[in-house]
Amino acid sequence: MSLISIHCADEIATITFTNSARRNALSNAMIEEVLHAVHDFEQNKMRVLVLRAERGVKVWSAGRDVTELPQPCRDPLEYGDPLEIILRQVQECSMPVIAMLEGSVWGGACDLVLSCDIVIGCPTTSFCMTPAKIGVPYNVTGILHFLNIMGANLAKEMFFTAEPLSAERAANFGIINHLVQTEELEGFTYEMARRITRNSPLTISVIKEQVRLLSCAHPLSPPTFERIQGLRRKVCDSKDYMEGINAFLEKRDPSFKGE
Amino acid sequence: MSLISIHCADEIATITFTNSARRNALSNAMIEEVLHAVHDFEQNKMRVLVLRAERGVKVWSAGRDVTELPQPCRDPLEYGDPLEIILRQVQECSMPVIAMLEGSVWGGACDLVLSCDIVIGCPTTSFCMTPAKIGVPYNVTGILHFLNIMGANLAKEMFFTAEPLSAERAANFGIINHLVQTEELEGFTYEMARRITRNSPLTISVIKEQVRLLSCAHPLSPPTFERIQGLRRKVCDSKDYMEGINAFLEKRDPSFKGE
Amino acid sequence: MSLISIHCADEIATITFTNSARRNALSNAMIEEVLHAVHDFEQNKMRVLVLRAERGVKVWSAGRDVTELPQPCRDPLEYGDPLEIILRQVQECSMPVIAMLEGSVWGGACDLVLSCDIVIGCPTTSFCMTPAKIGVPYNVTGILHFLNIMGANLAKEMFFTAEPLSAERAANFGIINHLVQTEELEGFTYEMARRITRNSPLTISVIKEQVRLLSCAHPLSPPTFERIQGLRRKVCDSKDYMEGINAFLEKRDPSFKGE
Amino acid sequence: MSLISIHCADEIATITFTNSARRNALSNAMIEEVLHAVHDFEQNKMRVLVLRAERGVKVWSAGRDVTELPQPCRDPLEYGDPLEIILRQVQECSMPVIAMLEGSVWGGACDLVLSCDIVIGCPTTSFCMTPAKIGVPYNVTGILHFLNIMGANLAKEMFFTAEPLSAERAANFGIINHLVQTEELEGFTYEMARRITRNSPLTISVIKEQVRLLSCAHPLSPPTFERIQGLRRKVCDSKDYMEGINAFLEKRDPSFKGE
Amino acid sequence: MSLISIHCADEIATITFTNSARRNALSNAMIEEVLHAVHDFEQNKMRVLVLRAERGVKVWSAGRDVTELPQPCRDPLEYGDPLEIILRQVQECSMPVIAMLEGSVWGGACDLVLSCDIVIGCPTTSFCMTPAKIGVPYNVTGILHFLNIMGANLAKEMFFTAEPLSAERAANFGIINHLVQTEELEGFTYEMARRITRNSPLTISVIKEQVRLLSCAHPLSPPTFERIQGLRRKVCDSKDYMEGINAFLEKRDPSFKGE
Amino acid sequence: MSLISIHCADEIATITFTNSARRNALSNAMIEEVLHAVHDFEQNKMRVLVLRAERGVKVWSAGRDVTELPQPCRDPLEYGDPLEIILRQVQECSMPVIAMLEGSVWGGACDLVLSCDIVIGCPTTSFCMTPAKIGVPYNVTGILHFLNIMGANLAKEMFFTAEPLSAERAANFGIINHLVQTEELEGFTYEMARRITRNSPLTISVIKEQVRLLSCAHPLSPPTFERIQGLRRKVCDSKDYMEGINAFLEKRDPSFKGE
Ligand code: NI
Ligand code: NI
Ligand code: NI
Repeated sequence: MSLISIHCADEIATITFTNSARRNALSNAMIEEVLHAVHDFEQNKMRVLVLRAERGVKVWSAGRDVTELPQPCRDPLEYGDPLEIILRQVQECSMPVIAMLEGSVWGGACDLVLSCDIVIGCPTTSFCMTPAKIGVPYNVTGILHFLNIMGANLAKEMFFTAEPLSAERAANFGIINHLVQTEELEGFTYEMARRITRNSPLTISVIKEQVRLLSCAHPLSPPTFERIQGLRRKVCDSKDYMEGINAFLEKRDPSFKGE
Repeated sequence: MSLISIHCADEIATITFTNSARRNALSNAMIEEVLHAVHDFEQNKMRVLVLRAERGVKVWSAGRDVTELPQPCRDPLEYGDPLEIILRQVQECSMPVIAMLEGSVWGGACDLVLSCDIVIGCPTTSFCMTPAKIGVPYNVTGILHFLNIMGANLAKEMFFTAEPLSAERAANFGIINHLVQTEELEGFTYEMARRITRNSPLTISVIKEQVRLLSCAHPLSPPTFERIQGLRRKVCDSKDYMEGINAFLEKRDPSFKGE
Repeated sequence: MSLISIHCADEIATITFTNSARRNALSNAMIEEVLHAVHDFEQNKMRVLVLRAERGVKVWSAGRDVTELPQPCRDPLEYGDPLEIILRQVQECSMPVIAMLEGSVWGGACDLVLSCDIVIGCPTTSFCMTPAKIGVPYNVTGILHFLNIMGANLAKEMFFTAEPLSAERAANFGIINHLVQTEELEGFTYEMARRITRNSPLTISVIKEQVRLLSCAHPLSPPTFERIQGLRRKVCDSKDYMEGINAFLEKRDPSFKGE
Repeated sequence: MSLISIHCADEIATITFTNSARRNALSNAMIEEVLHAVHDFEQNKMRVLVLRAERGVKVWSAGRDVTELPQPCRDPLEYGDPLEIILRQVQECSMPVIAMLEGSVWGGACDLVLSCDIVIGCPTTSFCMTPAKIGVPYNVTGILHFLNIMGANLAKEMFFTAEPLSAERAANFGIINHLVQTEELEGFTYEMARRITRNSPLTISVIKEQVRLLSCAHPLSPPTFERIQGLRRKVCDSKDYMEGINAFLEKRDPSFKGE
Repeated sequence: MSLISIHCADEIATITFTNSARRNALSNAMIEEVLHAVHDFEQNKMRVLVLRAERGVKVWSAGRDVTELPQPCRDPLEYGDPLEIILRQVQECSMPVIAMLEGSVWGGACDLVLSCDIVIGCPTTSFCMTPAKIGVPYNVTGILHFLNIMGANLAKEMFFTAEPLSAERAANFGIINHLVQTEELEGFTYEMARRITRNSPLTISVIKEQVRLLSCAHPLSPPTFERIQGLRRKVCDSKDYMEGINAFLEKRDPSFKGE
Repeated sequence: MSLISIHCADEIATITFTNSARRNALSNAMIEEVLHAVHDFEQNKMRVLVLRAERGVKVWSAGRDVTELPQPCRDPLEYGDPLEIILRQVQECSMPVIAMLEGSVWGGACDLVLSCDIVIGCPTTSFCMTPAKIGVPYNVTGILHFLNIMGANLAKEMFFTAEPLSAERAANFGIINHLVQTEELEGFTYEMARRITRNSPLTISVIKEQVRLLSCAHPLSPPTFERIQGLRRKVCDSKDYMEGINAFLEKRDPSFKGE
């Protein structure tokens, strides 16, 4: 059974998350389907991709499937993790990707949305960065996705409080390109997509790649990076990491000791 | 016949684009005049430069003169191109440069405005980034000018849709420092200029230079840059590039094939 | 006599500037007290630090104590200067630091606020960057603090005009995370602090450190930096620098010659 | 007719240039064959690749085929040029590549040898960097290959004089890993290859990739790179460039004017 | 029982490895002793540190104690590993450290020697980089230590062949500063140490720190580093890694499959 | 009276230091003459510059004139210092510069020689890096000049011991391109110069600039650089700095306390 549906028309491709039962959690299976779809769209020279959930959902995506997190003492955001792979694919594919957002966006799904090129939201949209609630050490590229869109102080508020960011604040701070009424969301998004299809796909794909490379152009010295990796490892090896995941799975509040 | 007029008073220099007939297109001839003017202002120790069009214009500047683009298979945004030279001069001169904007700003003129230090707009102001409409591969420093002012998602919307950005959105996203009524535009701008003249010109010019250098401090490895250059070259060599320029000159919609 | 008061409750530490008589100027003595307090909070595993002034103050902090600036021909923002040390401590400590702002914030105190992780303001809050008024050459890390929070054009307006930035504009541009009514300021701030204490302190401190390192990741080549240092030295050695400090101490307007 | 011969035994692959008639010039056709061969070796999990010419040749490779240089006003060392592609393939493939050198190595073939992992030479080996003799603007990655192996002063001597560097000096300066007698060249090289096949191929390929990335880790700011590109373009567009190529093809000394 | 002996005279400190029975393997216990000793020398303002083994040893140090490598699926060269800590301490301490080498130097001990400031060897000295023999993925800072001393081709020969590098070749390639007769080794080393003690310790320690920082100044973008970390992780998780360690402990040749 | 003599023939310019009485110390007056000469050679399109002393001198140059060092508490190697200016001019001028060395080279003159493109020496040549003998904090670009030519361990030996490096070791380590007999020095140097004049000056000057930029491409983050500057300032402000200069001028051994 498929966890997404796909649609192509007028050089515009659409991926719709259809696993509302599981709140469109980014499970390995669902990511696998997205990877294949995007790959095919590129082959078929689609010019824009719209990433969306079904109409009327409360949750656009609940983020990574916590039941699939690796065992303790292993980096949960490793380069080869499916979530990391899909984030890179969205950034590296030649088509612009528009995130069309109805409902709340959680954890890794926030990172996915920030990896899209353009974000259209509506009043029910909200963002919630959960790693500090679960105790997960975030990775450097993931944090960089935030810093390329918003000021460091807002990124830190999102990560440190793990509270939802409303559509209105998101639009004010430029995280959402356009905030429109829910009933106009589709019309607005596809009208923008259509305009993009009329422009030069070569120019667009090269500019997209240039923006990606400039966004990565915050290089760190090797000892700095190895130090960060060492700090992150301590978090993965901590009791709090297990407490956070267990609390999440047991649907209770975690009790963190800082150890 | 001059394409600009210049004025100096109270240590405030002003360049006014006066070629409304050609919508103040940034032709080689006009850029040449601006270069000389800025050079003289520096010699005469002017403390602020206001860059503006004539009162009541619909178009502040239509951007680069497309009839002067180089022949196919040549980089249209090369380091020695007059537009690139004027962008650097505006950034490197010791005076703060205030862009005072009435009317719409197109293509290379957007880049010029973003290269200014402070931007004052009014309700008729709008910005439209046109390279994807013409099929021009943008250069890395040009894209960086956008990323130092706005989030990557907004920059990509401007480049990918090539649709006008309204004064209101520009102000919301911080592209325009102040959005004031059209009739207050001059008063507001020159009042700010006057305040700047009272402050330490040495402090200001060094901070301006530091901001410029930090804005450039997104270094790329040599193979990354040569790869970008290779991608841009494919665009210059493409059929779409010729189609884009021809369509523009023939005032018809281009038909891009991605080849 | 102490220049600050400190308070700890529920893993939330608070530093209150209590030297309103001197407008909470960041004197060496006051910085020394803050350094000790933050150090102790870290030892005692506080989870959040709130940095604030007393209720109802007009001036949150007047910034660096100008009477303590070094003699001419010496860099006033040197690495070992107490102000620089406290900025680094706030950035490097493992607790999130929330700046809770009532009243105006001047010069080096703006830099302190931007070095905090989250900023909560109220209608009386304003920011004023004064170095160009006094003739002080700002340092590279200081300018970088601004560029990591706001667009380059807004940073330049603040530095070049040395005019106050209102709470409203600061909130629009994302410098203030939340703008709330003065009477709600405390309640709002401590509610946010409480939420943070419930999350994983290990995750938070590592993300804070990653954001810090990514914010610094705008590297410059050695000749570029030595050139900046040479430019800054010329400012320290200039007549204008002495004029600026003297004018400030004599409470008169400076007359800068650019020499 | 093939321009190379290939051989595989004991997990050691060998490519032998067999076009002595054309002094093993790196023509597009020959590069194409090498590309395919290396690709196949990787598929077949070969553990080492030896790159060599036939026994007793005077010229190991004369470098790029000058008759195939692009027309004037086009970058002759563009990212998509076959020579550039083969240099990257040699650096990026997972097997160590040993250059086994008998005879002289010219121009682009020097760059190919420096892109190999290990270099074994004999008394007839010599290196000659010819671009200044022909008037070709070298690319940044090419120059970086030299700087990662030798001091800047030696690289500049090679480029500026375009004189042969003897096997002895090359060995002294570490360009050649081992200088052995011609009759021992094969035995020595394959003995080293055999030792490598006994070690962990995973460890080796990851270290090779790390060395490659660290060798590239000399990042340049975007304006610096665009400036270099502008300087190189002036060379391609110059009269001297045409003079250099014509003189080479007419087998006469060029007469450069610096224009 | 101590694994090292220490000695101080004339502001010259000496650490002598005294665990010849275990071939001075860099066990956690021995590293712990070195860490304390260096720390004390710094407190006591020693001006030079000589790092040596006992007279007449065959093996200066066999490198890291393989029996202490972490279990599979864990990074064996993690930031907090004792070997990594001692490498950083040697680089970061304010005294110059002279490695005085008699006998062979293996694996992690090569990295320790390259982390010293000056290396004095004698004819019995040799270097052998063993990670490819055991199947260990080397870390980025470790590889960088090699690239800051020798050409990339020599570093790759050492890593890929895991064969000893003789004192003579090491001296030729500049890895050893001075190659002297074994009986002159002590006299020569301490004479150099004495000369250093006469010079300005402030100047020396700042230059040492500058060289360290410049040696690290090969920054990598975040995705590049996370990709390397992903590649290294595959090696740690591979069957070959277990095979390599087991073979070493069982004193037999490993049989690597590349899996 | 002139401190240098200049000569031009066959597109080869020569500067000869003629102030043997003062051991060709790099006084401000002498540097001024060199600056003018190089500027004129560039205007006159000279193709190579030979930098030399008079035949038979014992001292090629004694380095910076210590009597002209700035007063304490001021950076002696500031960006605008004449020595720094001449180093940059030699690196940035379009002609290759060959240092032809007879006699010993001291302190800042070593830096000048390393800033040249090619170095030819003879048996009387030697190098001595004296800052640690005088107590001067070296600057970052100066140290980088060494690291681009030699391994970090050799650079540290030169700086830490302040002992002469013989011509033979210099040649072994590649600091000297060619070591020839004293009587052949002129013939050899001018023969190389002549060969360079026959090659493309455009190609050569662009490659020279690329090597310069790649040599600088070791970028440091702003806090790293400000920390180095702070460390260097402590040295300038120390008692040892005054002791070092006084001892030098009084021709006695300094007694450094590390304070
Ligand atoms: Ni940045
Ligand atoms: Ni940036
Ligand atoms: Ni390097």
